[in-house]
Amino acid sequence: MPLLVVGSVALDSVETPTERRDNVLGGSAVFFSYAASYFSPVRLVGVVGEDWPAQHTELLEQRRIDTSGLQIVPGEKTFRWRGKYLPNMNDRETLEVHLNVFERFDPVLSPAQRQSRLVFLANGPPRAQLKVLDQLEAPVLTVADTMDLWINIQHSDLMTVLRRIDGLVMNDSEARLLTGDENLVRAGHKVRELGPRFVVIKKGEHGAMFFSEHETYVLPAYPTPNVVDPTGAGDSFAGGMMGYLAERGSFEPKILKEAMGYGIVVASFNVEDFSLERMRSIERQDLDQRLGEYRQMLSF
Amino acid sequence: MPLLVVGSVALDSVETPTERRDNVLGGSAVFFSYAASYFSPVRLVGVVGEDWPAQHTELLEQRRIDTSGLQIVPGEKTFRWRGKYLPNMNDRETLEVHLNVFERFDPVLSPAQRQSRLVFLANGPPRAQLKVLDQLEAPVLTVADTMDLWINIQHSDLMTVLRRIDGLVMNDSEARLLTGDENLVRAGHKVRELGPRFVVIKKGEHGAMFFSEHETYVLPAYPTPNVVDPTGAGDSFAGGMMGYLAERGSFEPKILKEAMGYGIVVASFNVEDFSLERMRSIERQDLDQRLGEYRQMLSF
Repeated sequence: MPLLVVGSVALDSVETPTERRDNVLGGSAVFFSYAASYFSPVRLVGVVGEDWPAQHTELLEQRRIDTSGLQIVPGEKTFRWRGKYLPNMNDRETLEVHLNVFERFDPVLSPAQRQSRLVFLANGPPRAQLKVLDQLEAPVLTVADTMDLWINIQHSDLMTVLRRIDGLVMNDSEARLLTGDENLVRAGHKVRELGPRFVVIKKGEHGAMFFSEHETYVLPAYPTPNVVDPTGAGDSFAGGMMGYLAERGSFEPKILKEAMGYGIVVASFNVEDFSLERMRSIERQDLDQRLGEYRQMLSF
Repeated sequence: MPLLVVGSVALDSVETPTERRDNVLGGSAVFFSYAASYFSPVRLVGVVGEDWPAQHTELLEQRRIDTSGLQIVPGEKTFRWRGKYLPNMNDRETLEVHLNVFERFDPVLSPAQRQSRLVFLANGPPRAQLKVLDQLEAPVLTVADTMDLWINIQHSDLMTVLRRIDGLVMNDSEARLLTGDENLVRAGHKVRELGPRFVVIKKGEHGAMFFSEHETYVLPAYPTPNVVDPTGAGDSFAGGMMGYLAERGSFEPKILKEAMGYGIVVASFNVEDFSLERMRSIERQDLDQRLGEYRQMLSF
């Protein structure tokens, strides 16, 4: 089933307690696309400036990612983010954000993109997410991400998004902020009552929780000893999840749970190096093998 | 197999964001014993003052907990702890600690207690833990808990304890403190290399991790929406785990993992009310039912 992602494409500069990288490939739509591409072709919609290195596009194209929706705007610069991870590697400080061309990102879908069946609205302004939803002609599964900024400054539009999507993916702190409930089990269901059929709460190194009308479950993160750079963990999780759903073409509870498992496993690889480096070094069979180990870990 | 626990017996005063209780039954050996008693008879060794209410002893005796090792010291007061949970219900502040009679706790085991095969050394000074180890005549599984205080002020004795026990149970922050490693997967194995055959790292609402030479796994907490009072969660976890091991009389990897599951499930009940209130309201079949739901949750 055709899978579409709309979101940020960025050049990231990342500092960890032991290393740093400058201007490496990043952005929510990039991590999502690459992670999803192990399972399904992906259509990426985003925007960059004229400083965008052509080899980044080639890298994505090599993996069945259709970048015809990646608009390059002359005279503009690509979105840049600089961040620093604290020693626990779970919390981070944003040191610099230059939205640049992303600030006026107004996604216009092509006729083919409008026909996408599965759609992921990566973290972005709820107003822009609504514009994408308006253009879809035959969606069967729409999932969005969001963040504290939009909960605070575009609350009403976010509420509209929640009533129109099938699934929401968000961080634990954001679920607490949105609902005012510190207990994540209650918070997850409160978010679900705002509209989405299912809600996924991401807990970073502690895994992810799933909420639907009839199901509540939590799956831990795969315990990797090699956490090098957590940037993009949440987006690669969502990419693995949605990619697997696109591959299977079914969203029944059993498949959704397997999709959560694949999301967790892809994210566990993603954090093992900077940017897309670790994901570039693996193939689908590596994901299957780690998923097997993960299942084994949880079975007793 | 006879199970022995040596540790604190206390009167706790607990404040949560919405409720408070004063001078309720608590202490590491109490939570441990009650949790273990669903699976196995337990021998409790501890000390209290003359202010100790007799009905607390009766409550424990009703559940196959042998309290003949609970020394009542005339003219002394029972250990008292007062704490306050932050809104996230995972972090807490200690407001008052009066060690009272527990300050000079010097456990002397009876001939029967010395014959115990499974022994849990609840959190306490490593020097006292060593004294208990010295008195054991036929231990087959010794497990200890510890805390940041002992890592800081009795480091050398703690190192000796680690070389003499089979298993160590500790919190995530303590594992990081002891090893200087922020990554819990690496930290767990580093602790194991200090002596114990296996290490369990407790992560509060995020579950627990297990480390042995050949195994590394993480199991999430059971997602209960009703977290009323987390006091004793770690000790009831250990009690459920050790109680099940005592019942089975085997410590092979498969049984240890089931024991982890039971520990997690008992702890999930324990946090649903103050003191032992929730555990008092359930039977073994409630644990089996929730364990079934928990297994189901982790299977995909």
